Amino acid sequence: MDVKAAVAHKAGAPLTIETVTLDGPREGEVLVEIKASGLCHTDAFTLSGEDPEGIFPAILGHEGAGVVVDVGPGVTSLKKGDHVIPLYTPECRQCDYCTSGKTNLCQAIRETQGQGLMPDGSSRFKINGEKVFHYMGCSTFANYTVVPEIALAKIREDAPFDKVCYIGCGVTTGIGAVINTAKVKPGDNVVVFGLGGIGLNVIQGARLAGADMIVGVDLNPARKDLGEKFGMTHFVNPNEVEGDLVPYLVDLTKGGADYSFECIGNVNVMRQALECCHKGWGESIIIGVAGAGQEISTRPFQLVTGRVWKGTAFGGAKGRTDVPKIVDWYMDGKINIDDLITHVMPVEKINEGFDLMHEGKSIRSVVTF
Amino acid sequence: MDVKAAVAHKAGAPLTIETVTLDGPREGEVLVEIKASGLCHTDAFTLSGEDPEGIFPAILGHEGAGVVVDVGPGVTSLKKGDHVIPLYTPECRQCDYCTSGKTNLCQAIRETQGQGLMPDGSSRFKINGEKVFHYMGCSTFANYTVVPEIALAKIREDAPFDKVCYIGCGVTTGIGAVINTAKVKPGDNVVVFGLGGIGLNVIQGARLAGADMIVGVDLNPARKDLGEKFGMTHFVNPNEVEGDLVPYLVDLTKGGADYSFECIGNVNVMRQALECCHKGWGESIIIGVAGAGQEISTRPFQLVTGRVWKGTAFGGAKGRTDVPKIVDWYMDGKINIDDLITHVMPVEKINEGFDLMHEGKSIRSVVTF
Repeated sequence: MDVKAAVAHKAGAPLTIETVTLDGPREGEVLVEIKASGLCHTDAFTLSGEDPEGIFPAILGHEGAGVVVDVGPGVTSLKKGDHVIPLYTPECRQCDYCTSGKTNLCQAIRETQGQGLMPDGSSRFKINGEKVFHYMGCSTFANYTVVPEIALAKIREDAPFDKVCYIGCGVTTGIGAVINTAKVKPGDNVVVFGLGGIGLNVIQGARLAGADMIVGVDLNPARKDLGEKFGMTHFVNPNEVEGDLVPYLVDLTKGGADYSFECIGNVNVMRQALECCHKGWGESIIIGVAGAGQEISTRPFQLVTGRVWKGTAFGGAKGRTDVPKIVDWYMDGKINIDDLITHVMPVEKINEGFDLMHEGKSIRSVVTF
Repeated sequence: MDVKAAVAHKAGAPLTIETVTLDGPREGEVLVEIKASGLCHTDAFTLSGEDPEGIFPAILGHEGAGVVVDVGPGVTSLKKGDHVIPLYTPECRQCDYCTSGKTNLCQAIRETQGQGLMPDGSSRFKINGEKVFHYMGCSTFANYTVVPEIALAKIREDAPFDKVCYIGCGVTTGIGAVINTAKVKPGDNVVVFGLGGIGLNVIQGARLAGADMIVGVDLNPARKDLGEKFGMTHFVNPNEVEGDLVPYLVDLTKGGADYSFECIGNVNVMRQALECCHKGWGESIIIGVAGAGQEISTRPFQLVTGRVWKGTAFGGAKGRTDVPKIVDWYMDGKINIDDLITHVMPVEKINEGFDLMHEGKSIRSVVTF
């Protein structure tokens, strides 16, 4: 079938809206009509060419929501008409990772997904007979896409696509980092570095978990009001701190953060996030994605005296299990997504959405089809 | 009173056996007759001058065992004749750290201890009226020393001093890192870097905790037989590995270590220890003490994909609570200390003990008084 997609032909170039040929779903695969898709920094990272694993031409997008149109042979958990969110971290519930109880990093289709291909090693997208690669197993910048059954979370049908698509990445990553990875408890003190689309979700996750002090750190003073709307109790602008940031934060939190979160992808900030943690027990969670080849460092003394350095991917969430719950939280008013989606536009204007991101004018832009 | 001590007058010089004046115990303090003391790499590190916090002249030693001779005013938990092990990590059971339930790093006397002084800010040791500093709150290289009550673990009276003194540091650090910090469970795979006085105790801790695969990594082939005696199941000599060590270890452990332990103090090995951990859940514990100013580094991707970087001091043990239990384990034959104490000598030969350490000929030397 012919589908409408925003195609990334090469690094650094704008996306182009084109008609692409999409093959139907094969064994274990599902054809999904994408209704809305968020624009995430990870899409921009790959599009920029800085992502060493980026492959072109590709159909980017990994934060979508839509409706099942058709299912391939052997698909049992989904049927036509089901509302779904594609998962770049699948949940096969069969592999050693899924059954370990210790990680969400399902490995069932990791290898082919990393190569921009479906699990059988082929692509469903073509332009003039030439292969176009999938992206993060999702490719939600197309009005139809094919996704493995194990990489689709079934969600309730009354949830608005142009809001809950954000649960496909940013919301779950931020809230999940708090709940699944850090396991913040009532009364904990939390410091969040970077109040963008991830950091603000970390803040509302910390509020949800009952944290006492929720400190937001950002260079943009406009993020103060927004942070407070999501539960931030203290705002720190590093430009306004006299002296070093780390001792300032340790002092503010009366000994250091119980948990800190790096939501930027800056290796220097990652070090600050670790070192502002409380001696004896503070844990720092890396969420941001650093540039290729960049390294984090610290003195081992920081760890020997009890700090813990961790990271998280997709907020430690098991998508098919956890994503439907987070959709419920949104529908029940437990979390706020509406105020994070600052721009909605037709897919034809997708490049304007990326411009807004780069200019720091949007928290999240969503394209609709 | 006059006591016999091995005095460190300056960095790099041999210790000298001298008569030192020791003042009696003040409020909350205890006079202990030291019967035996192990020689630890940390003593050698400070003596070398590489320890930026080293102060001279000082009476080193922090791995001792002895008998209470006198108690100062207000001491309630100890009396004359009690057998004790001095604790460089005290346990006041009152401070925010002790009561947190999350760390063993009691802060009650941290500041003065770091300055080589008793909690009231003075020293009990003098030579010709000139102050001699305490060391790690213990100074066990003297036949009598004064130690705060909160820094003494009361132990059973049938335990031999020249064996259980080692529980004052090395044994507890190694076994505690496994039990308290990593919390190794039956069936886990463990990799231990450095099979010295700490690493061999990590190995027997892992055996005690029921680990399946216990891999020891050391450049010294002589450590293979010794490691196996303590429960090591696989020995890896990096010099005999073709190609990179990390993928070799990941392959050997079928995906990576559930827990790895760095027992050397080498920041490059600390990185290998982290990176040989299992994707999704492997945790690496830093035990070794790195040189001043040295830093660890890795790509943040290692953490984002689920590895955890931790450290431990004194094996996460709360000394007054845990040390007596470990003495029981030794007396009950659950752990082996005898084979680790390769040399026992009178304190007069203490410099020979350090020579054996530097030559790699000893696991642990113990001096007696």
